[in-house]
Amino acid sequence: MRFTYIVPRLGRLRLKTMTKPLAVVLLSGGLDSAVCAAVAQRDGFALAALTIEYGQRHAIEVQAARLVATALGIERHLLLPIDLRAFGGSALTDDIDVPKGGLEEGVPVTYVPARNTVFLSLALAWAEALGARDIFIGVNAMDYSGYPDCRSEFIHAFEQLADLGTKAGAEGQRFHVHTPLIDLSKAEIVRLGHSLGLDLAMTTSCYDPGPNGEPCGGCDSCRLRAKGFAEAGVEDPRAR
Amino acid sequence: MRFTYIVPRLGRLRLKTMTKPLAVVLLSGGLDSAVCAAVAQRDGFALAALTIEYGQRHAIEVQAARLVATALGIERHLLLPIDLRAFGGSALTDDIDVPKGGLEEGVPVTYVPARNTVFLSLALAWAEALGARDIFIGVNAMDYSGYPDCRSEFIHAFEQLADLGTKAGAEGQRFHVHTPLIDLSKAEIVRLGHSLGLDLAMTTSCYDPGPNGEPCGGCDSCRLRAKGFAEAGVEDPRAR
Repeated sequence: MRFTYIVPRLGRLRLKTMTKPLAVVLLSGGLDSAVCAAVAQRDGFALAALTIEYGQRHAIEVQAARLVATALGIERHLLLPIDLRAFGGSALTDDIDVPKGGLEEGVPVTYVPARNTVFLSLALAWAEALGARDIFIGVNAMDYSGYPDCRSEFIHAFEQLADLGTKAGAEGQRFHVHTPLIDLSKAEIVRLGHSLGLDLAMTTSCYDPGPNGEPCGGCDSCRLRAKGFAEAGVEDPRAR
Repeated sequence: MRFTYIVPRLGRLRLKTMTKPLAVVLLSGGLDSAVCAAVAQRDGFALAALTIEYGQRHAIEVQAARLVATALGIERHLLLPIDLRAFGGSALTDDIDVPKGGLEEGVPVTYVPARNTVFLSLALAWAEALGARDIFIGVNAMDYSGYPDCRSEFIHAFEQLADLGTKAGAEGQRFHVHTPLIDLSKAEIVRLGHSLGLDLAMTTSCYDPGPNGEPCGGCDSCRLRAKGFAEAGVEDPRAR
């Protein structure tokens, strides 16, 4: 694939014509997926970004995803609506209060049933249709081990499934799900994004933002983000 | 779960109050998924039916799915739109001609990238939200071995993924993906549906139906259906 791309927001103007392997990146608009996308570009991939509009309360994320895709110069950005509210079962899609009392044991009520299975399946479908064999997802198993579908065993099982359940796999090709953040602390993710020149102010992490997208400061995701920035010694441009 | 159900179209009126395990069945409106749902009921499951409106050319299938769900007395029937046309890559969703010259070697152009991975993921999400641990899918590997995501290896890999990627799985519960048709010929599927009292006229199989849903008679799916009915010695109530 030959194309011209421009990444002005990364602090320098790059204008080249070159050949790069194509990867699909799941882009939520959160901190992790934005850093994940920047890492994928650093590692030499051209990106097709997939944002799933799944009826999340925090629709502000979708707007953030747009900003991140533009900033990274990702020309192919697909917003795919799928209303997971129809299934129910999560504080992120249902009318259930998002907890703000700090991290608790076990799987959080913000868990969306089988969400990463659904998201990776959609990324796989698009990757196969595009002829891409690489998928990037910003899952993280360190700071927040409560989500079962953020663990490396799950990712490896998905790779096996992808090879078995696709035409490309049946023809002997192999899919690779990249998880560059899986073993990083939130502070390391913040530092990594910062070092790649990513403007972290674009990203949003709150599970229960206000009407203008302002973070609540109390949900698990706000707490982890604040802790990450603090430990990294970086000021969060989005914090209240 | 206690509820009352009525299944008049199965040839007898059943009106009982009883407890049954709940299963999610993927219901396309085609012959196979209808028979699969009837088998699940025969095997003692209460059903929640999931029909994915994925932008298929044959939207007549969705109407058929409604008829089948009504006939089987499935009260919980969810139609979930997701536009897989956004991805491309298939004669069933793109502006590519559906072949009508007979079965060919390899993966057919009617293959939709990672379709059953996407469909099973969505069924899994709903199953977990409903507290169900059983999923039924009418895949069939005998007559039509060209689709990689209809093979038992794929199904087993998905079960492993489901156990790893869900809260229920992390809590030690196991998901089971039932594929009662996987080793049956099309003729055996026709006989099975017939023996269960299913009105097969409701079902549709054509990949490229006319404006009023009439089957083309030439696509792979029409050919397999015709062959199945002929070998079963059953008249197809839907054939031209």
